[in-house]
Amino acid sequence: MIDLGPDFRLRDPADYPRWYGFDHPRPDLLAQAVYGLPELHRAELVALADAEVAIVGSPGCYPTATILGLAPLAGAGLIGDLVVDAKSGVSGAGRETKPDMMFGEVNESVKAYGVGGHRHTAEIEQELALVTARAGLAANANPGTAPLDFLPHLIPMTRGIFSSSHVRPSRPITQAALDALYAEAYADEPFVTVVAAPPATKHVTGSNEVRIHVRLDERSGRILVLSVEDNIVKGAAGQAIQAFNLVHGLPETAGLEQLPLAP
Amino acid sequence: MIDLGPDFRLRDPADYPRWYGFDHPRPDLLAQAVYGLPELHRAELVALADAEVAIVGSPGCYPTATILGLAPLAGAGLIGDLVVDAKSGVSGAGRETKPDMMFGEVNESVKAYGVGGHRHTAEIEQELALVTARAGLAANANPGTAPLDFLPHLIPMTRGIFSSSHVRPSRPITQAALDALYAEAYADEPFVTVVAAPPATKHVTGSNEVRIHVRLDERSGRILVLSVEDNIVKGAAGQAIQAFNLVHGLPETAGLEQLPLAP
Amino acid sequence: MIDLGPDFRLRDPADYPRWYGFDHPRPDLLAQAVYGLPELHRAELVALADAEVAIVGSPGCYPTATILGLAPLAGAGLIGDLVVDAKSGVSGAGRETKPDMMFGEVNESVKAYGVGGHRHTAEIEQELALVTARAGLAANANPGTAPLDFLPHLIPMTRGIFSSSHVRPSRPITQAALDALYAEAYADEPFVTVVAAPPATKHVTGSNEVRIHVRLDERSGRILVLSVEDNIVKGAAGQAIQAFNLVHGLPETAGLEQLPLAP
Amino acid sequence: MIDLGPDFRLRDPADYPRWYGFDHPRPDLLAQAVYGLPELHRAELVALADAEVAIVGSPGCYPTATILGLAPLAGAGLIGDLVVDAKSGVSGAGRETKPDMMFGEVNESVKAYGVGGHRHTAEIEQELALVTARAGLAANANPGTAPLDFLPHLIPMTRGIFSSSHVRPSRPITQAALDALYAEAYADEPFVTVVAAPPATKHVTGSNEVRIHVRLDERSGRILVLSVEDNIVKGAAGQAIQAFNLVHGLPETAGLEQLPLAP
Repeated sequence: MIDLGPDFRLRDPADYPRWYGFDHPRPDLLAQAVYGLPELHRAELVALADAEVAIVGSPGCYPTATILGLAPLAGAGLIGDLVVDAKSGVSGAGRETKPDMMFGEVNESVKAYGVGGHRHTAEIEQELALVTARAGLAANANPGTAPLDFLPHLIPMTRGIFSSSHVRPSRPITQAALDALYAEAYADEPFVTVVAAPPATKHVTGSNEVRIHVRLDERSGRILVLSVEDNIVKGAAGQAIQAFNLVHGLPETAGLEQLPLAP
Repeated sequence: MIDLGPDFRLRDPADYPRWYGFDHPRPDLLAQAVYGLPELHRAELVALADAEVAIVGSPGCYPTATILGLAPLAGAGLIGDLVVDAKSGVSGAGRETKPDMMFGEVNESVKAYGVGGHRHTAEIEQELALVTARAGLAANANPGTAPLDFLPHLIPMTRGIFSSSHVRPSRPITQAALDALYAEAYADEPFVTVVAAPPATKHVTGSNEVRIHVRLDERSGRILVLSVEDNIVKGAAGQAIQAFNLVHGLPETAGLEQLPLAP
Repeated sequence: MIDLGPDFRLRDPADYPRWYGFDHPRPDLLAQAVYGLPELHRAELVALADAEVAIVGSPGCYPTATILGLAPLAGAGLIGDLVVDAKSGVSGAGRETKPDMMFGEVNESVKAYGVGGHRHTAEIEQELALVTARAGLAANANPGTAPLDFLPHLIPMTRGIFSSSHVRPSRPITQAALDALYAEAYADEPFVTVVAAPPATKHVTGSNEVRIHVRLDERSGRILVLSVEDNIVKGAAGQAIQAFNLVHGLPETAGLEQLPLAP
Repeated sequence: MIDLGPDFRLRDPADYPRWYGFDHPRPDLLAQAVYGLPELHRAELVALADAEVAIVGSPGCYPTATILGLAPLAGAGLIGDLVVDAKSGVSGAGRETKPDMMFGEVNESVKAYGVGGHRHTAEIEQELALVTARAGLAANANPGTAPLDFLPHLIPMTRGIFSSSHVRPSRPITQAALDALYAEAYADEPFVTVVAAPPATKHVTGSNEVRIHVRLDERSGRILVLSVEDNIVKGAAGQAIQAFNLVHGLPETAGLEQLPLAP
C-alpha cells in the first residue's frame, strides 16, 4: 500500500495527536511503514518486495522539496540555524471546494498560512534527524533542524512548490565545498538535479524532477538552498509511482520520464 | 524634489558604488536628503518646508513593508537574528520590456532573484540601524539586522508585496508584549494597521495601507512578522504623495484615502 | 429599493418562468420597476423620487456592456444580424463557493457556459426592443436582436467583461457615420466613453466607466462593437449607486469618480 | 521541410501581399507545398514521401481549431452565415519580447486584436473553400465562409485556444443530424474528439488533441461550434510532428501520445 495521505509518514505515534489531532489507531504499523522518499529510503523500499506487509507513507509536497534541498547539509552537520520559507500553488490543497481556494480569492494575492504550525513540519524534522543519525552525528549536530521554523505561503498559481531554506552554517564553508557536497549527494539520482542558477518552479512543471540550487551568500554568511518541484508529480503522484517501481522491481524511472512542460 | 528612484535613499556615499555600481556625483546632497518614509521621518519631512533644498528619497517597495514590519522590534533591541524572505508581483520591476517579465515566463511560476545581493538590502539595513540608534541602543543591539539576509521572489501577480520576517529574539518575549509594542508604535499612523490574523496582499490592493501581523511562534521560538503593501501605492507613488503632503503642509492623507479594491 | 438581482429586471412576467424557472410572485410590481441603466432610463429613475413605490432592477453585468454597445445601432435600425460573444472574469459569478470557480479549475483555461441559454439574453433582448420602439421603428427593424445568439465565456481573471458584438448591418453604412452616431449618443454621458482603438478590460478596472469601440470591417461587411466594463462597478455596485444618485437627486457621479487602477 | 511559419500555408501567391505585406519570392513552390493539417491533407502528406521536394506549411494555431471545428459543416454546405470569435493565451504570439505581452499588461485583462484583419483569416477561408470544393459543392455553397469575420482575443493565460464559431445554417438541421455528421467526420481521427459537453482549453493542455462540441441552439437557430486545442502542441509543434510522421511513414501518433496535464 502506498498511501498519499499523512497516515504513515511519521514514525513516532506521539506526532499524530500533536500535529494531526488524533491518536494513530495502529501505531504498530508505523514501525513497518517506509517513508517513501526514494533518495533517502531506496533500500528500504526495495526490501518491501519481500515484506509481508508493505506500507509506504508517501511524503508531503513541501517535505519532498525541502528535505532533498537540506539533506546534504544535514548529513555534514552544517545546519546551525534554519528558516524554511516555502511557496506553493493551490493544487497542494487538493480539489476540495474551499472558499479560500476560489479564483477570486487566490488570484492577485499572496498569503502565509499554517503560521507557526504547518503539519509538514513534523516530516521535515523527522527526516533531517534521520539523516543526522545516519551520518553518525550527534542528535544536536544540526541544531537548526528542530524545532523548525517552517512558513508556507499560497501563491496565485496551480502547480509548483518553491522552498527557500536560509541556513546559518555551523562552521565555515566555501561555495566550492558546497558544490562538491551536492554534486556527490545527487550524482546518481535520476530525479534530482543540482543547478548552477536559481531555478523557477516552471522549470519542472509536469515532471518528476526536483531542482536544487545552493548558494553561499558571503555577505550575510548564510547558505541559501532553493529547491523546486511540481507538487503534483514529485510532490505526490510521481513520487508514489517512483516508490511503486522500487517496491515492484521495476526500473525506478518507469512512467516518469515525461519532460517539463514549458512555457 | 521627491525622487522615486534610489539616488537619494542612502546616506552613506560608499553605499552607491557597493550596491549600485556607480559613484554618487553629488554626495553633498545625500546629507540633506530625507528618506521619505513618513512613519520614521515625519518631522524631517515637515521641516523640508523651510529648507532651501528639499530632497526626498522615496523608499523602495520592499524596504517600506519590511522596515515598517521590523521597526518596533529594532527599537526594542529584539532582533537577535533575522531572515527576510519577500515576495513581489511584477510591477515592482517597472514597465520596461524585459524577457523575464513576459506573461509566458511569469505565469504559473515562482523564482527567487537578486540572490544574496538585492539592492534594497542597503536601505533596510540603514533604516533599522537608524531606529536602533534613535532608541539609544548600542549599534550591535540588533545583531540580526546587518549584514541582512534578504531574499526576494517574483510571484505571478501584478501588484503586491508580502514580506515575511523571521526573527530570533535577542531575549525572551511574550505575544502580549509584542502586541503592546506594535499597538503603541502604530497607534497614530493613518496608513499602518496591525492586524490580528495573517494578511494577504489583496487586502491592501490599490490603497496606501501597510498591514502588519506579528506572531510569536512559541514552538520554534521565533517572531514572525508578516507585512503587506501595494507596491505601486504605499511602496511607490502613494508614499511619495504622502511625503509631498507633509512637505507642503497638506493633510498627510490628502489624495490617499482610496479603499482597497476587492476582489 | 435598488435590487441587484434579476427579480425586477424583466418587464414581461412570462420571462421569469422561461428564463429563471419560477413564476414571479408579484407581477404587478414589474410594471412599476425601472430598469436601472441610467443611459437609457434616466428620466424614469429621476421620476422615482416622487413615486410611492420606487423599485429599480439593476442590470446584469453582461447586459450593461452589451446594451450600451448596441443601443446606437438599434436606435438607427441597423442590426440586421447579430452575434454577441462575451467574456467575463469570475467575479460575475458571485462569491459563492462552487467547484468550477476554484483557482485550479479556472486558471490557465477558457470555457463557454450557458451555451444557448444564458439568462442575461432576456434583458438584452428587452432593452434593444425598447430602444427600437423608442426610435419609432417597427418591431422587426432590428431583426438581429431577437432571438439573440449570446454566448458568454469564463476567462481566468477576477474582474472585467469584454463584450464582442458582431453586427451585419441592415443597410450600407460608413465608418464616419458610425463614429458620428456613437459620438452623438454618448456625448453627454459621464460613464460611457467611445474610444478610437480597441479597448482592454483593464482600461476600466475599478471604475464605473464603459468603453466602446465601433469598427466597420469593410472586408467582411460587418460592424464590430467591442465594449468593456468592470463587472463589479458599472456592471453591478457602481451602476446601482449611479441609479441611487438619480433617484435621490444627488449628482449622478457622486461616489463614482474613482479612476481605473492600472496596471 | 516542415515550416511552422506562414510562408507555405497559402496556395494563392496573391494572398501574400494582401495578408502579409510581401510578394512571395518562390510562388512556384507554393503549388507543391502541402498544408500540414493531417485531418484534411493526410494523403498528400503521405505522398510527399516520394516527392523530390517535400514542403509542408504547418497550419496556424487559430486555423487548426477553427477549420477542424467547421469542416464537417462546410462539407455539408451548411454554413449560411459565420462569425468566428476566438480566444488565445499569450504563447501564440511567440517568445519575442513585446510590451503588450508583459505580465503586467496581460494579467487581469482581455482585449481583441487584429480587429478586422488577422492574417489567419486567409488560411481559414482557403481550407473551408477546399472542403467545399472537395464535397463537389458550388463555390458559394457555404456563403458564410468568405469573406470571413474572424475576431481573435488575447486572454490572460499561457497556453490554449478556444474558437467559438457561430453558424447560421443554410438549411434546417437537427442536433441528431449534427451529431451524426461530426461522429462520422472524426470517427477515425486519433487527435480529434467530439465531446458532448462544452470543452475548456485546460482539457487538452499539453496534448495534441482537439476537442469539438457542436450544439444547435434551437432558440436562436444557430449552430455553435466550440473547439479547443493547445496552441503549442496541436496548434504548432505537435501538429508538425504529426505531419512529419506521415511524410516519413511513421505511425501518425508517434511521440504524440502525451496526456493532457490537469490541473
